Amino acid sequence: MYNTSKLVFSPRVRKSPYFNSTIKYGAQAFSVYNHMYMPISYEGTVKDYNNLLNGVQLWDVGVERQVQIKGPDAEALSQFLTPRNIKKCSNGQAMYAPFLDFKGGFINDPVMLKIDEDCYWFSLADGDALLWVQGIAAGFKFDVDIHEPDVSPLQVQGPNSTKLMVRVFGDWVNDLGFYRFKEVVHEGIPMVIARMGYSRELCYEIFLQDQSKGDELWEILWLAGQDFNISAGTPNVILRLEGGILSYLADIDRTNNPYEVGLDWMVDLDQADDFIGKEALREISLKGPAKKLIGAEIQGDPITLFNEEHLPVLIDRKKVGSMNAMAYSPRLNKNICYTILDIEHANSGQEIIISTPDSELKAITVDLPWLERA
Amino acid sequence: MYNTSKLVFSPRVRKSPYFNSTIKYGAQAFSVYNHMYMPISYEGTVKDYNNLLNGVQLWDVGVERQVQIKGPDAEALSQFLTPRNIKKCSNGQAMYAPFLDFKGGFINDPVMLKIDEDCYWFSLADGDALLWVQGIAAGFKFDVDIHEPDVSPLQVQGPNSTKLMVRVFGDWVNDLGFYRFKEVVHEGIPMVIARMGYSRELCYEIFLQDQSKGDELWEILWLAGQDFNISAGTPNVILRLEGGILSYLADIDRTNNPYEVGLDWMVDLDQADDFIGKEALREISLKGPAKKLIGAEIQGDPITLFNEEHLPVLIDRKKVGSMNAMAYSPRLNKNICYTILDIEHANSGQEIIISTPDSELKAITVDLPWLERA
Repeated sequence: MYNTSKLVFSPRVRKSPYFNSTIKYGAQAFSVYNHMYMPISYEGTVKDYNNLLNGVQLWDVGVERQVQIKGPDAEALSQFLTPRNIKKCSNGQAMYAPFLDFKGGFINDPVMLKIDEDCYWFSLADGDALLWVQGIAAGFKFDVDIHEPDVSPLQVQGPNSTKLMVRVFGDWVNDLGFYRFKEVVHEGIPMVIARMGYSRELCYEIFLQDQSKGDELWEILWLAGQDFNISAGTPNVILRLEGGILSYLADIDRTNNPYEVGLDWMVDLDQADDFIGKEALREISLKGPAKKLIGAEIQGDPITLFNEEHLPVLIDRKKVGSMNAMAYSPRLNKNICYTILDIEHANSGQEIIISTPDSELKAITVDLPWLERA
Repeated sequence: MYNTSKLVFSPRVRKSPYFNSTIKYGAQAFSVYNHMYMPISYEGTVKDYNNLLNGVQLWDVGVERQVQIKGPDAEALSQFLTPRNIKKCSNGQAMYAPFLDFKGGFINDPVMLKIDEDCYWFSLADGDALLWVQGIAAGFKFDVDIHEPDVSPLQVQGPNSTKLMVRVFGDWVNDLGFYRFKEVVHEGIPMVIARMGYSRELCYEIFLQDQSKGDELWEILWLAGQDFNISAGTPNVILRLEGGILSYLADIDRTNNPYEVGLDWMVDLDQADDFIGKEALREISLKGPAKKLIGAEIQGDPITLFNEEHLPVLIDRKKVGSMNAMAYSPRLNKNICYTILDIEHANSGQEIIISTPDSELKAITVDLPWLERA
């Protein structure tokens, strides 16, 4: 379990369009993400995880705010913001497209949706990247309009998710490709439906385009999911770790670059266009990174505590990195975690010590991920 | 009281350097602000308020992250970011210096500290304005270095605060002018001490410059304050409302401009230098704002609930604005609140209805503030 305190609901922090539904269906704990309340537990991390794997689950991820870039220079600016080659993205396609700073450090790691030739959405992790995009656009004089549209994602997760989506939205969902999306109006509710989400399980992401209809959309799905074993859940640390998925600010932050965290594959230094961080990344790619993210398996009984902070990693009593996230995986029957280690130690099979406030944990590094996509 | 849920401590959100002290001295509830945990209650809003007025209080406001702008163009960029005339600010002086966007809307409302001719700090409200400043600086090609330094503010609040500060730091504190500051190293702890803070009471703000020494600094002050009736507290909604102080994202946000919220006085359209939003503000100053922030006094018994969201304000059953923050003030013996009303209704003496989920509250508008600086 995590340590907790009381969280007060006050007007400085916004409620998601699904907030009332999350309370109604039993959300027991929240965090704050992009100035909004985000549910993070219903029946506990392990029970929520099992519920998902045994049916279908709704996740309120309305906190993933969108940056919409629209106008004649939308493609040019979007390309300038990310090291990916976005010219390879078609209309109706999505692409993981992190924002980097001029030193190659992560500003945010959004998924990009190409809505139209002149319109892109970036679905944000935790951070006001809207301000970055607007500052860059103003100074570099891109001819675009940039704002946060009325869009609030809801994820449908788990082995029964396709069955539920087909029942509610129709057979076309069967043919929706991975990281493809379609604009839909269902019972008067406008939305974009994508086949993707924050796990390696079968999953969908519904980008609701009318914040007044969050609870209505939730109820439609809930009702239709009764015989598919539907439950309410949240982004889950066990699923994330099993699948090698990163959480911005928990696992990585601005001090990291793509070469350190296994994201080399998304950097296209050969593309003709310039992008922010290109020069710095070229240097890092030549020298190699100074540290690297790698998995580790912690020995001993199943751990029940999650870490509240990054913990020091030791080899021969010397600090060589940090352990950033850990959990016991029931289906792997292993304690798994992410570490970021000095490059000379970042190889699989390395014995390390994780120093917690109460004890020292022995672990062995392993390559990521533990599980591939379902 | 506020409604609450559980808050989980996890590594995505940072702890303040004073976190352990806030737990030790009884923090009972937290929120998240600038990706950090912020304590918001010890013994309850009213008791915390009374404790402050009867002695001296420590507030962990480490969440006020600093943007440091340093280099040859530091003054030019700082001026470009705010409508205030910062040429009027001396070394060792601070100034409330909001950031606006190109339409005149609030990006953030920091206090600026002029550390040196070529070095400025902006002490942020809730929002990643660092990204805005870095984006603007890159695009408009200002020759500066911009980063978040290791600085974590702690406020010393209340009628006994000068006595405590003099005892710990020396007689010079008696001569420190309002919104003036001094760099100090005390018992090996580097800090900037300013006479200002987030209330109209006698108060000081200590900008700790070594995050490893937060609890040490707290204990030095706590020990010295034993016979000054020292307590632990937090930024307090009652004090804020009494004094007409604004909370970014609670009371105002990006949809507001200075003319709407009583901050006309800080806009200097006559200065020679350009700044972001100047053109838009000139237009608004000519046309006049479309809505305006004004206080209101709610009739009836002392209210005990705080609002979780902005509430609609009605006149003749028609929505004419919103009520953004409310509390009962013990020393005024009044229920007080902030409203933002359509301009034709934003005059004192106006009867309004505040529509809560449970009831309708009658109120009369009044000019701000209720209390001047102590």
